[in-house]
Amino acid sequence: MKILDKINEPVSKVRPYQPGRPIEDVARDFGLNPDEIVKIASNESVLGVSPKAQKALIECVSNLHRYPDAGAWELRDKLSKKMNLEPDQFIFGAGSNEILVFLAQVFLGPGKAVVASAHAFVIYKILTAMMGGDFIEVPVKAGLQHDLDAMAKAITPETSLVFVCNPNNPTGTLISQEEIDNFMEQVPDDVLVVFDEAYAEICLGEMPDTLSFVKKGKTCIVLRTFSKAYGLAGIRIGYGMASAELVSELNKPRQPFNANLAAQNMAVAALDDDEFLQDSIEAYRSAKQYYEQLCNELELEFIPSYANFVLIKTGNGGDIAQKLMALGVIVRPLQPYLLDDWIRVSFGTAEENQAFGSAIKQLRQSNDV
Amino acid sequence: MKILDKINEPVSKVRPYQPGRPIEDVARDFGLNPDEIVKIASNESVLGVSPKAQKALIECVSNLHRYPDAGAWELRDKLSKKMNLEPDQFIFGAGSNEILVFLAQVFLGPGKAVVASAHAFVIYKILTAMMGGDFIEVPVKAGLQHDLDAMAKAITPETSLVFVCNPNNPTGTLISQEEIDNFMEQVPDDVLVVFDEAYAEICLGEMPDTLSFVKKGKTCIVLRTFSKAYGLAGIRIGYGMASAELVSELNKPRQPFNANLAAQNMAVAALDDDEFLQDSIEAYRSAKQYYEQLCNELELEFIPSYANFVLIKTGNGGDIAQKLMALGVIVRPLQPYLLDDWIRVSFGTAEENQAFGSAIKQLRQSNDV
Repeated sequence: MKILDKINEPVSKVRPYQPGRPIEDVARDFGLNPDEIVKIASNESVLGVSPKAQKALIECVSNLHRYPDAGAWELRDKLSKKMNLEPDQFIFGAGSNEILVFLAQVFLGPGKAVVASAHAFVIYKILTAMMGGDFIEVPVKAGLQHDLDAMAKAITPETSLVFVCNPNNPTGTLISQEEIDNFMEQVPDDVLVVFDEAYAEICLGEMPDTLSFVKKGKTCIVLRTFSKAYGLAGIRIGYGMASAELVSELNKPRQPFNANLAAQNMAVAALDDDEFLQDSIEAYRSAKQYYEQLCNELELEFIPSYANFVLIKTGNGGDIAQKLMALGVIVRPLQPYLLDDWIRVSFGTAEENQAFGSAIKQLRQSNDV
Repeated sequence: MKILDKINEPVSKVRPYQPGRPIEDVARDFGLNPDEIVKIASNESVLGVSPKAQKALIECVSNLHRYPDAGAWELRDKLSKKMNLEPDQFIFGAGSNEILVFLAQVFLGPGKAVVASAHAFVIYKILTAMMGGDFIEVPVKAGLQHDLDAMAKAITPETSLVFVCNPNNPTGTLISQEEIDNFMEQVPDDVLVVFDEAYAEICLGEMPDTLSFVKKGKTCIVLRTFSKAYGLAGIRIGYGMASAELVSELNKPRQPFNANLAAQNMAVAALDDDEFLQDSIEAYRSAKQYYEQLCNELELEFIPSYANFVLIKTGNGGDIAQKLMALGVIVRPLQPYLLDDWIRVSFGTAEENQAFGSAIKQLRQSNDV
C-alpha cells in the first residue's frame, strides 16, 4: 500500500508492549481447563474487585448509553478532598497508562529526551520511541534499585521528562523519602519528574510523600491508578496530580470521554472501600512472606518486594515461564525488561501461591530451576 | 513553570472539544430537578443500553480486576464472521473516536494534510492541529451536503487522510453509493479515505456499502461504534476495518488495554441484539417524523436527517440552546461547527421529543425563534 510511505517514521518503528496472556488463550494452547489455570502474571488485585465498586457498577448499568462526564466532576471532587488538592490539579486517564501517553504527546519529540532507570516500566521506552525522542536509560544500583543520583546526573538541557517508578514494576524495589528529597534538589526546574506510583496504596513499606512536591509547586506529577489497589484493571481508570497549569496542558491531547462512565462511578465508590484495601494489603503481606520463604527454601535469588509481586531469578525466565504455563501457572517472563534470567510472580491467594510453589518445586525436581 | 517552554507547539495550541453538559451540571446551574431534565444533546441511544449488553456486563462485574484481553479476541472473532473480514482486519478503540486519534498519530504531522468537509465532525480538525498538520476544509453543497467532487479536487501530494463522515454529524446528511463510487475513482491510492460511520447501523436511508472497498484492497478504513446503535456510549467501544497491513500500523500507537473488559463483553453481546436495534430504528423513524412535522408547523428550516438527530435553524443557536436549557431541555448549539444559527436536537423518546416541542413553542410565543 502506497499510503504506508506516509507513516510517521518513529511510529512505524514502534514494537508494541507485549501484555500477559489471557487465561482462555493459555488454556486453548495447552489443552487445559481455564478454571484450573492460575494467572499470577499481571499484578492484578488478589481479592478481585472492590465490592463497593461492584455495587456502583450494577447501579449504573442501565445508564451506560450516556456519554461519560468529560470533567469527571464527582471523582475529581472526591479526590480533591482526599488529597487536599484543588479540583483542577487532577487529570484522568484510562488507567494511569493513558496519562503516560499524554505526557509523551505534550513533552516528547525529536531532540527531546527522557531519563529513566533500566528495568523500569517498559512503556516509558515505547512512548519515547513513538514520539521520536531520545531515551536515556540509567543503570541500576545493587539489588536492581533505581540509582537516583546517576539519573539526576544523566539530565541534560534536552531532557523533558524523568520517570521515577516507585515501587518499581517489575522489580518491586522502593525508593526512600531521603533519596527522593536529595534527587529533587538536583533536578533543574525545566525538567518534569513523573512519579509513577501504581502500587502506592498497597505499598508494603514506607511510601515516600511525593504529593508534597506537587503542593510546593515543584515541576512534577504524581500518577496513581485504581487498577491495582482497588481491582479496577479491567475497567481502566487512573489519574495524575500536578499544578493546574500543567494539568491544563496535559488535557489538550486528552479525548473528552477517555474516562468511561462505569470507571468513574466505580472509582468514586472504591475510594470508600478501606476495608477492601486493608484486607488486600494483609493478603499481600502474607504472600510476600510465603514467596520469600519458598525462595529461601529452594535457594532461589529474589528481590525483596514492596508491591504485590516478586521478581525471582530462575535462570532462563522465558523457558521457565513456558514450563510453568504447561503446569497451569501463568507468570511473567521479562525479556522486554532485559531481565532474561528472572520471572515476575504476582501475589495471589494462598491457593494460587501454593499452586506456584508446587509447580516450581516440580521444575526443581526435574532440574529446570 | 519553565517546563511549559518545552511543550510541543501544536499540542499547546489545541483548544479541546467542548462536549455536551451532563444533566447534573445543568440541573445545578438552573436550579432544576435532574429527573425533570431532558437531555437530547449527544445523539445517545433512545432506548438506553442494549439489554443483552447489560446482562453481559452484570455477568463480568466480579472479573473486572483482570486486565482486558489486549487482542479483543472474542469480539474480533464475532465481528470477523459478521463482516466477512479476516480477524486481523479489525482495530479496536475506546469509541471509534480513539481510532481517529491513532490515524492522526500515524499519518499526520507538519507538512501533511487532511481534507474534510466543512461542518463535519469537529474532532478531525482538532486532531490535525494537535499533530501540526494542515486542515483543508471543503465548503458544502446546498443542503449542507458533503461536496465529494470538490473534496477529491482538494487532494494534493501532501494529503494523507480524507475524512468522509456518513451520515454526517452534526448535519445528518447522507452520501449516496453513486457519489462514493465516483469519489473513490478520483482519490489517488496514496491517500487514505476514512469512512466515519458512527450512525451506520441506525441509518434512516440507504447506507452505502463502503466495506466493499476494504475488501477490494482500496486505501480506506471504515469506522464503526457501539455508542449510538447499541447504547454503549458510556463504556467506550468502537472499531475500524481496513487491510491487515494498515491495521498493523494503526496498532502501533494503541495502548494494549485501550478497549476495556466490560466494553468488550458488552459489545459481543450487543451484536446479537437485533431486536433492540430494530426497535431503536423504529423509534428514530417516528422521531424524525415528529420533528419534521414540528419544524414545518413552526416554519423552521431543518436538514432532513438520516441519523438519530436533526439540525434545526432557529437563529442564534447558542442563545436558543441556553433558553431551552432554562426550560429543562438540553440540545446542542453548534458554534464550533460554524453553524451559529442552528441547533442539533437528538431524537429522544416520544415524551422527550414532546418536551422539546413544548419548549420551542414557548420560545416561539415569546418571539425568541
